[in-house]
Amino acid sequence: MKKRLTIYTATLTAFIIFGAFFLTPTNAQNSSQNTKSDDQKIQKQAQAIFKPLAETMPASEANPTTAEKVRLGKKLYYDPRLSLSGVISCNTCHNLATYGSDNVETSLGHNFQTGGRNAPTVLNAGTHIAQFWDGREPDLEGQAKGPVLNPLEMAMPDSELVIQRLSSIPEYREEFAVVFEGDEPVNYDNVANAIAAFERTLVTPSRFDDYLNGNNNALTPEEKEGLQLFMTKACITCHNGAGVGGSMYQKFGVVKPYKNQEDLGRYKITNKEADKYVFKVPSLRNITRTYPYFHDGQVWDIREAVYIMGESQLGMQLSDEEISNIVIFLDSLTGEIPEDALKLPVLPPSTAETSKPKI
Amino acid sequence: MKKRLTIYTATLTAFIIFGAFFLTPTNAQNSSQNTKSDDQKIQKQAQAIFKPLAETMPASEANPTTAEKVRLGKKLYYDPRLSLSGVISCNTCHNLATYGSDNVETSLGHNFQTGGRNAPTVLNAGTHIAQFWDGREPDLEGQAKGPVLNPLEMAMPDSELVIQRLSSIPEYREEFAVVFEGDEPVNYDNVANAIAAFERTLVTPSRFDDYLNGNNNALTPEEKEGLQLFMTKACITCHNGAGVGGSMYQKFGVVKPYKNQEDLGRYKITNKEADKYVFKVPSLRNITRTYPYFHDGQVWDIREAVYIMGESQLGMQLSDEEISNIVIFLDSLTGEIPEDALKLPVLPPSTAETSKPKI
Repeated sequence: MKKRLTIYTATLTAFIIFGAFFLTPTNAQNSSQNTKSDDQKIQKQAQAIFKPLAETMPASEANPTTAEKVRLGKKLYYDPRLSLSGVISCNTCHNLATYGSDNVETSLGHNFQTGGRNAPTVLNAGTHIAQFWDGREPDLEGQAKGPVLNPLEMAMPDSELVIQRLSSIPEYREEFAVVFEGDEPVNYDNVANAIAAFERTLVTPSRFDDYLNGNNNALTPEEKEGLQLFMTKACITCHNGAGVGGSMYQKFGVVKPYKNQEDLGRYKITNKEADKYVFKVPSLRNITRTYPYFHDGQVWDIREAVYIMGESQLGMQLSDEEISNIVIFLDSLTGEIPEDALKLPVLPPSTAETSKPKI
Repeated sequence: MKKRLTIYTATLTAFIIFGAFFLTPTNAQNSSQNTKSDDQKIQKQAQAIFKPLAETMPASEANPTTAEKVRLGKKLYYDPRLSLSGVISCNTCHNLATYGSDNVETSLGHNFQTGGRNAPTVLNAGTHIAQFWDGREPDLEGQAKGPVLNPLEMAMPDSELVIQRLSSIPEYREEFAVVFEGDEPVNYDNVANAIAAFERTLVTPSRFDDYLNGNNNALTPEEKEGLQLFMTKACITCHNGAGVGGSMYQKFGVVKPYKNQEDLGRYKITNKEADKYVFKVPSLRNITRTYPYFHDGQVWDIREAVYIMGESQLGMQLSDEEISNIVIFLDSLTGEIPEDALKLPVLPPSTAETSKPKI
C-alpha cells in the first residue's frame, strides 16, 4: 500500500515538474547558442527533475551495509557454485565488465536455456522502486534469491543445496559468522543480504551528477542541448529522479502498442486489467552500454529505442536530429563502475564435503 | 625436432638429479626434527630440482610482451564477444577467481556442450613445454586460437567473424593499431598474440619460491617434510622445474593403467604406439585449487589423486600419512594471482555494425 502510494506520488510529482517546465520559456532549437542565463535555467530545471546519485545506496534497517558484508557479498556475487552447474554466477548475466548486463537479448542460463526477459543491469539497481521488470520483488534482497533457484537460470533445486555448498567451505562459514548474528549464520536470507549489500555499492556517478551538483561545465553544449530536448519532449514524465528512471511503473504503449504484445508485464503479478503491458520504467543510467533494449531485448539500436519511446509513449515522431541530440545526452549518463567491485575476488576452495556441480 | 630434444634432455636431467638424490643420505621419516644441516641439504636438493618462477614468462621474439599488448590481451581474455553466443569468454573456463580453472570435470561450452578434457589452469601455462593436455600446440599463441573456433567451446564458425566483431568496435581498432604493425592489425594472429602476452603475466609465485630463493624459513617444518617425501618418492621424476611439472610428456599408467582408458592422449597427434596414454605432465603450481584432477577431471580429491599417482606411475602404495605430508607441501605451491590480472577491464561497447550474438 505504501509502495503504491509512493508510485502515485512520484508520478504526480513528475507531472507537476513537467507541467511547470512547459510554462518556462526556453528556446530548445537554439540551445547550443544558449546564453549563460539560459544555461543556468536548464541546469535549474534539471536539478528539480533529477537527483545526483549518492555515494552508496540506502539500506534497510534489517540489512545495514558494512564493509565485511560487502566483501562477503562480492565473493558470493562472483561465485559460480551458486549455480547447479558450477559455472554460472550472478556476474555471468550481470557482468560488471559490461556495465552489469550481458548484452544479449535474454540471458543464457542452465543448459543454455533462455530467460523470458532481458537481464537488467545491476548497477544502481538499489535506487529503483522495486526489482525485476515487473517489480515483483520489493528490494535487492528479494531479487537476489530469484535467479539462483530459477530452473532456467542458475537452476539450484532448492536453497538447501546452496547452503550445503557454502557451509562446506570453512572460509565462508567464518565470514558469515563474522557478518551475521544467530546460531546458523549461513542461511539463504543471509546469502541474499550479503549480495544485496554488495550491490548497494554499485553506484556509477557520471559527469551528469557533477552537473546536477552545480558544475555547469560538466556537460558539453551538445549534451546540454540533448538534456533540454529530453526535458521538453516529456521523456522526464517517466525518466526522472536519481536513476533517470526506475522510480515508477508505466504502460509500454501508452499511445501506440509495442510490436511485441506477448508479455503482459505487471498484469501477471497483480491480475489487474490496468496493469497489462505495465513495466517498471528502466533507469537510463549507463543506457548506451546496456543494450539490447526493452523487456524483451528486441531492440539493439539506442536510436531505434528512443524513436519507439517517442512514438509509443508520447505519440510523436522524433526527427533524426532530435534522436541524435537525445542520445548524446544519454551517453553522459555512462558512469564510473566502482574499482573495488571490478576486482575479482579469489574464491575459497571447495572441500571434500562440497556438493559437486551437476548438469 | 628441437622440442623433442628438449623433452628428452629435460627427462634425462630429471633422472640424473633424481638418481643423485637417492645417493644422498637423508632421514625422511624424522624430517620434522631435522637438524639445521639436514634442513639445508633438503633446500639444496630442492634448488637443484626446481626453479623459482620468474616475474614474467619469456616471450618469443615474434611476440614480445609490452604493457599495451598485455592491456589489450586482458580485454580480449575477458570479452565474451569472442564466443558465438556472446556469453563465453576465456575467463569462463579459465576463471581467474578460481585460479585460472573452472573446477568442473570438463568445461561447459556453447549450448552447455562438454569438452573432452578438463580445462587446465592458465596460470603459469607459459612455462610449459607445450599447450593442451596432449601438447598439440607449441605455445600460448597457438592455444589461444583453439577454443574460440571449437564448436564445443566458444563456437565461432570462423576467425572472420571474430575479426568482424572486434574491428567493428573503434576502441579495439585503435588499440590493435597502437600495439601491432601492418595494414590490418586486427587479425586473428594478433588476437592470439595479445591474449598470449596477457597470459604470460599470469605468474603466481608462492612461499615455495621464497624457499628456493634462499629463505629456508619460508616453508613450515611440515611443508619441508612433505617436500622431502615428494623428492624421495620420485614424484620429481616428472614434476620438476619452475612449474613443478609441465616440462615433459609421460605415460599415464607407467606401472598400472589408469581407470579411464578411453583417451589415448598424444597418440591421437603423433599416431605412434609409444604415445598411447601419454600426456603432458601437469604443473602442480596451485594444484590444491585446480581440482578436479587428471585429463578427464574424474578425481576430485587431491589425496586420491596423489594415491593414484603413486600406484599407477611409481608402483607404490602411499600411506595415509605420506599422502597427508605430500598434500601439505603441494598447498605451499598456491601462489598469488597478479592483482592487475584480477581487475576486470571495462569492455568497449559494440556498435550497430557488430555482428550479434547467436545461439
